[in-house]
Amino acid sequence: MSQSPGFRIRRRVEFGDTDMAGIMHFSNFFRFMEVAETDFLRSLGLSVSWHTHGQRVGFPRVSASCEYRKPARFEDLLDVAVVLVKLGRKSVSYRFDFWRNDELLAVGRISAVCCRSDGQQIESVEIPPAIRQVLEPHLCPEAEL
Amino acid sequence: MSQSPGFRIRRRVEFGDTDMAGIMHFSNFFRFMEVAETDFLRSLGLSVSWHTHGQRVGFPRVSASCEYRKPARFEDLLDVAVVLVKLGRKSVSYRFDFWRNDELLAVGRISAVCCRSDGQQIESVEIPPAIRQVLEPHLCPEAEL
Amino acid sequence: MSQSPGFRIRRRVEFGDTDMAGIMHFSNFFRFMEVAETDFLRSLGLSVSWHTHGQRVGFPRVSASCEYRKPARFEDLLDVAVVLVKLGRKSVSYRFDFWRNDELLAVGRISAVCCRSDGQQIESVEIPPAIRQVLEPHLCPEAEL
Amino acid sequence: MSQSPGFRIRRRVEFGDTDMAGIMHFSNFFRFMEVAETDFLRSLGLSVSWHTHGQRVGFPRVSASCEYRKPARFEDLLDVAVVLVKLGRKSVSYRFDFWRNDELLAVGRISAVCCRSDGQQIESVEIPPAIRQVLEPHLCPEAEL
Repeated sequence: MSQSPGFRIRRRVEFGDTDMAGIMHFSNFFRFMEVAETDFLRSLGLSVSWHTHGQRVGFPRVSASCEYRKPARFEDLLDVAVVLVKLGRKSVSYRFDFWRNDELLAVGRISAVCCRSDGQQIESVEIPPAIRQVLEPHLCPEAEL
Repeated sequence: MSQSPGFRIRRRVEFGDTDMAGIMHFSNFFRFMEVAETDFLRSLGLSVSWHTHGQRVGFPRVSASCEYRKPARFEDLLDVAVVLVKLGRKSVSYRFDFWRNDELLAVGRISAVCCRSDGQQIESVEIPPAIRQVLEPHLCPEAEL
Repeated sequence: MSQSPGFRIRRRVEFGDTDMAGIMHFSNFFRFMEVAETDFLRSLGLSVSWHTHGQRVGFPRVSASCEYRKPARFEDLLDVAVVLVKLGRKSVSYRFDFWRNDELLAVGRISAVCCRSDGQQIESVEIPPAIRQVLEPHLCPEAEL
Repeated sequence: MSQSPGFRIRRRVEFGDTDMAGIMHFSNFFRFMEVAETDFLRSLGLSVSWHTHGQRVGFPRVSASCEYRKPARFEDLLDVAVVLVKLGRKSVSYRFDFWRNDELLAVGRISAVCCRSDGQQIESVEIPPAIRQVLEPHLCPEAEL
């Protein structure tokens, strides 16, 4: 298996994830990243979105990217490793390594900013200390990888 | 072209709509139905979901089905005809005919119930008279098709 | 938990499965059914699609439907029970019960026909005896439910 | 409207494109990019995938990214401008500007490599001269934007 540090999920490529080229459609890697991110946060007792004081707080994405090295195919079992590579004042950045056994198929990245919304306006805010405290031990800056 | 009465949309099968069998994935016919339904309502000045008196009113689906006769392929131009086949006290039912030129590829159905939600509870309600009035002229009961 | 007989999968509703109504988008129930069907076949050593004698054999859907009783929400853990309700000469029919704990949220159905394709033409064929033999013990006609 | 040069498509955000945050799900920007890329190629008489000499030739993605500046909402009409920013020996790179009227909502990028496949192996190849000739007049290097 792979050497990516930290949290990982295992997920099978479904028939509906494929396209007529016979491989996983490139947009679905982003769906897998989201599941990995959500499961990572859930494993820490956190969520991507929650209500507090009548407002919704969450981590909408400000950027997402993926480098595709090898195609993933129907029924492949993928391990998606989640690495928290940056924890800013308002933002978090993740790297996602897609492994099929010991082959690295793709590397994805997502950056998200902590935001508060009253249903109308969305406003970026500092990451609440209680959440920062939970995330910080999992920080693994890219330079150290 | 086809003989289905009434409103229709034209939409191309996209690469991302296909699966590894080289045809449009069966779940995407439901996405096309939704677009046809939404466009039909929009053409009448209506919406699938709106706010009124601090509540959300909308038409969530209670059933959906599709019969697949011939596959749809990448770049096929599909005409989806929308037929309002039933207008009940609280519910509406649509039929959707998927045509590629004069070939009928699939027939779908959706039934939806008018519902009111305060964000917590969802409750079925009578279709507001103003909406019924707009829909009624487009009713084309299946028996008359 | 639920009383549906037979094979079941457990799957969490993902953020990307939801829509702006805050519930699982109705088309995604069909994605869940497909996963349940595929996993059921895999558990028996079968597949939804395979190559033999230079041809692709598979089970394309001829119909699919779903009745929605209660909405499924983000992070809900759904149990999808697969019931093989019909095993025809060329076709199979499944029922899918969507449970959240002991609440039945939705009931879906898929019928599929065994087909052979040389890449151009698709032709329906009898279900190969080796496959029928594996499926037959799992048949649970609706009348007996 | 916007100032992005070149080809553009117009597309409405559909109900099924949204998520429970009430905005277009971040992965669907990649679906829109693909449609814009495909339509751009089709407008030039090209395709993302074709058969020649018993082989499939196409442009699988090697990377994709998106920066999200403002959310897109249900029923928004988006103009997606396609800019061919690089035409390498084997690869092409596009930029996609997502406009809602004169607001730039997002900027996406896709790089794709010309590949040949016999159904088993995928191998990168030089872009065929006939295709290069059609694409070249549309090249708009980023430095010149």
